[in-house]
Amino acid sequence: MSEVLNKLLEENQKYSDSFGNKADLPTSPVKKIAILTCMDSRLDPSKFAGLAEGDAHVIRNAGGRVSEDAIRSFVISYKLLGTNEWFVIHHTGCGMESFTDDVMSGLLKKSLKTATYTESGWEDNNEGPGSDAGDSIDWLTISHTEQSVIDDVNTIKNHPLVPDDIVVHGLLLDVKTGKLKQII
Amino acid sequence: MSEVLNKLLEENQKYSDSFGNKADLPTSPVKKIAILTCMDSRLDPSKFAGLAEGDAHVIRNAGGRVSEDAIRSFVISYKLLGTNEWFVIHHTGCGMESFTDDVMSGLLKKSLKTATYTESGWEDNNEGPGSDAGDSIDWLTISHTEQSVIDDVNTIKNHPLVPDDIVVHGLLLDVKTGKLKQII
Repeated sequence: MSEVLNKLLEENQKYSDSFGNKADLPTSPVKKIAILTCMDSRLDPSKFAGLAEGDAHVIRNAGGRVSEDAIRSFVISYKLLGTNEWFVIHHTGCGMESFTDDVMSGLLKKSLKTATYTESGWEDNNEGPGSDAGDSIDWLTISHTEQSVIDDVNTIKNHPLVPDDIVVHGLLLDVKTGKLKQII
Repeated sequence: MSEVLNKLLEENQKYSDSFGNKADLPTSPVKKIAILTCMDSRLDPSKFAGLAEGDAHVIRNAGGRVSEDAIRSFVISYKLLGTNEWFVIHHTGCGMESFTDDVMSGLLKKSLKTATYTESGWEDNNEGPGSDAGDSIDWLTISHTEQSVIDDVNTIKNHPLVPDDIVVHGLLLDVKTGKLKQII
C-alpha cells in the first residue's frame, strides 16, 4: 500500500474520531455562498474566508478560472442548493501567469514528465515520449492578474443560465500576506 | 456593500493578521499530491485529509468528477508543479445522485430560480423565464456512488496526457462519520 495513502488515512481516522455532530449538517450551504478559487496548495478557503463545514460550496481548479465546468458547478449550486452570492478569488503569484497555451503544448509534446522553471521560462529536458493531446486544450492561462478576475466575473454574469439576482464578487488573495482585496 | 462580503473580509482580516511565516511556502505542493473532490459544503479536504497550507493541490467541482477541466488542472499539477500521487474522493449523500441530465434541463427550462426537492424528486414551481442552455451541458450526474469513483479513476489513468507512473487512488467519504474508505 502507498505510504502517502496510509498517512492520509491515518489523518482521516483522527478526523473521524472527533467528528462530533457534523452528521447533522444540512446539504444546502448555510451561508448560501459559493466560492471559486485556485487549486494552489498555499490556499485554504476555509481558513482565508473563515468557513466552517456546512457554510459554502467551494469550487477549485487551476487558476480559479470560470471554465464550463465551473459554470456547471455554480448552476447546480444555486438551482438545486440555493446559493445566491458567489465569489471568484484569484491570487498573486499564480502559476497560470507563467506560461501560454503554446508553451504548455510544446512541453507536453516533448515529454509527459515534470518540466523545470528557469530564468528563461519553462524547460523540459526529459526524454519522451510526449503527446500532442495538449493542443486541443484551452489551458485558461492568465496574462493580467486583476483583469482575469474581472473577465471571469463578467463571464458568469453574462451566462444565460445565471439569474440576474445572483451577486458575484471578484477578489484577489495576496499569497504573501493572506489578505483579500476586492477587485469587482 | 454586501453584508456577506463584509463578513468574509472581516474573517479574512483575522486570518491575515495571524499569517505568520506562510509567505515563504513553496509554490509546488510539499506532499506532491493532488486531490479532486466535491464542492459540497460539508466537505473540508484540509480537515478530512489532514492537510496544511502548502501540502496539496485541491481541485473541486460538483460531484468531484473527472471533467475535462479537472484533467486540465491535474496535468498542470504534475507537468509544472511535480505532483505524482492523485486522489479522487467522492462522498455519500451526494446531490449529484438526485437528478439526471433530463431533470436538470427540464428544471432550467421552467425557470432560473431555485427548485425544491420533494418526495417525488425535484420540482420547480417558480415563474419563468427559463433557458434551454442547459440542454448542451453534461451535468456529470452520479448513478452509482462507488462505480463513479472507479470510472473517474480509470478516465484519469487512460488519459493520453497522464504518465503511467502517476499513482491514482479512488476513495469515498462518508458524510455521516467523516471516514474515508478506499474504493480503488
